[in-house]
Amino acid sequence: MVTATIHPFRASREPSLEPLMELVAGDMNGVNAVILERMQSKVALIPELAGHLIAGGGKRMRPMLTLASAKLLGYPGTRHHKLAAAVEFIHTATLLHDDVVDGSGMRRGKRTANLIWGNSASVLVGDFLFSRAFELMVEDGSLKVLKILSSASSVIAEGEVEQLTAQRRIETDEEHYLEIISAKTAALFAAACRVAPVVAEAGEESELALESYGKHLGIAFQLADDVIDYASDAEVMGKGVGDDFRDGKMTLPLILAYARGSDDDRAFWRDAVSGERTSAKDLAKAIRLMRSTDALADTIEIARQYGRRAIAALAPFPSSKAKAALTEAVEFAIARAY
Amino acid sequence: MVTATIHPFRASREPSLEPLMELVAGDMNGVNAVILERMQSKVALIPELAGHLIAGGGKRMRPMLTLASAKLLGYPGTRHHKLAAAVEFIHTATLLHDDVVDGSGMRRGKRTANLIWGNSASVLVGDFLFSRAFELMVEDGSLKVLKILSSASSVIAEGEVEQLTAQRRIETDEEHYLEIISAKTAALFAAACRVAPVVAEAGEESELALESYGKHLGIAFQLADDVIDYASDAEVMGKGVGDDFRDGKMTLPLILAYARGSDDDRAFWRDAVSGERTSAKDLAKAIRLMRSTDALADTIEIARQYGRRAIAALAPFPSSKAKAALTEAVEFAIARAY
Repeated sequence: MVTATIHPFRASREPSLEPLMELVAGDMNGVNAVILERMQSKVALIPELAGHLIAGGGKRMRPMLTLASAKLLGYPGTRHHKLAAAVEFIHTATLLHDDVVDGSGMRRGKRTANLIWGNSASVLVGDFLFSRAFELMVEDGSLKVLKILSSASSVIAEGEVEQLTAQRRIETDEEHYLEIISAKTAALFAAACRVAPVVAEAGEESELALESYGKHLGIAFQLADDVIDYASDAEVMGKGVGDDFRDGKMTLPLILAYARGSDDDRAFWRDAVSGERTSAKDLAKAIRLMRSTDALADTIEIARQYGRRAIAALAPFPSSKAKAALTEAVEFAIARAY
Repeated sequence: MVTATIHPFRASREPSLEPLMELVAGDMNGVNAVILERMQSKVALIPELAGHLIAGGGKRMRPMLTLASAKLLGYPGTRHHKLAAAVEFIHTATLLHDDVVDGSGMRRGKRTANLIWGNSASVLVGDFLFSRAFELMVEDGSLKVLKILSSASSVIAEGEVEQLTAQRRIETDEEHYLEIISAKTAALFAAACRVAPVVAEAGEESELALESYGKHLGIAFQLADDVIDYASDAEVMGKGVGDDFRDGKMTLPLILAYARGSDDDRAFWRDAVSGERTSAKDLAKAIRLMRSTDALADTIEIARQYGRRAIAALAPFPSSKAKAALTEAVEFAIARAY
């Protein structure tokens, strides 16, 4: 058994998403068929715009988690294909709306839908996908699943509004930030995982364990993303580096660097967050300050702590390919950042 | 019995929404309590922004229809209060997103939320209200209601995208336009009405009759709105007159005037729809052409035809205060336009 505290991360090779992808490859064909079928509409712009993002190189992390969680429980059916598709539709809807909110131009290495078709189309097609997600859940017919995913959707939207409120506010602290990402990112990871034991009728204990896995993985995943936005180049991330910096987003690397900075540094951060420092030189200085204060390394360390909790949540389940794949997915999520 | 073809409209006094409002006043207190409670959030911007629109003088037409339909069926319970609130949340979410899409500055005689708090906040709070609507439905626990309202939500979003696609396209015809408003407006009216017989367990025939009532009323309501946008002043409408004209929206008055115009008139309409004629003088000319071609009067006449069908759909139900109020609501919806 892999225990959380002793060998949480394997050192033998680079952590990879391959085992997870292999594990769910067969089921994912089923999910992709649902996605393709249900993003259709007689209104041609809908599949055109949705397809740009959906076919556009996403990892399908969240539906993979639903599928792998079902494997972990030995669930033999296919009911969860529709639900995994619903989870991906909710995610896609939030990405479309996020890109409008942030005015983003790049996503997954491609031009964003809002740049190509305009903000209005992105807002409305997002609404369509969101509604379609609920239709899929209603077809499945489990009120328990509907409760989990409608509640997650509310929490996500609350987290998004909270993030908007915190934007350009230098006083946002670590605790507040973790609350925001628990809502805007981790809630859907948690729901995606929890759906599987509900469908498999695996019981409350499995539900809580997999929800905890998803939630802590989601936080680790987001923290790694936050580091990547300061430490990577556009090719790796598939979006512009420094987007968070230029948008005045209060992510953990910035929060730590500000808290630990000299008076001069703190003045720099205040200016940056208020939108007065957006040049390449300013970004380079920001990254330098984040490194000298260990803000990036410590964000990765905090991501690792959440990753360990995600892996610990899998302890009740016996060893299996699925458990190994879910464990390595956590390592992969964090390893992206270094 | 009021039959559809002989005396569809009373002439004795101005049609009013008063009988409907009186009929549902008690229940509406219950609905308002749900709305107020469930638009709350620890993220202060959410109730602030949502409250601006929700408390801002809307008629609550759609929840009133749910309540009055339940009265028509003699339903004694209160389960539909939550569902009527869900319907209003869905409606409010679409208004928030519509105003972003149209770049509107006025709604119900007040500055729009997007103007005060920005497009991003309007998009995200709309998402929150939409999710909250589904949470309310899930709490009620009827999969049949969930199916009706999730399907209506998809259809609404499809209709909104279709309208966006038709915008500034002079070739949009009457049939296409009626399809758009059946989706973007009438689907929610129909669903709001159909929810009541489901909750009251009144049977399939009542469901279809009330759905038909709501659908035809919704089309009549939208056509009247379209006329008002050319024939009224800002105080009556609570929004700027000529908004549709300046946005290049293909509504029925414009479609009819274009179809009936001389070559010169048609050239004017093409320029107007493509955005080259947006002055007050251009709007005055548009209204003049709509009057000389009877486009406004005939749009009202078509609205009346849909109104008659709405009233005819109530034929299976015995006379009652509720039936009289629902009938007068149709007359009121159309009378707003003349």
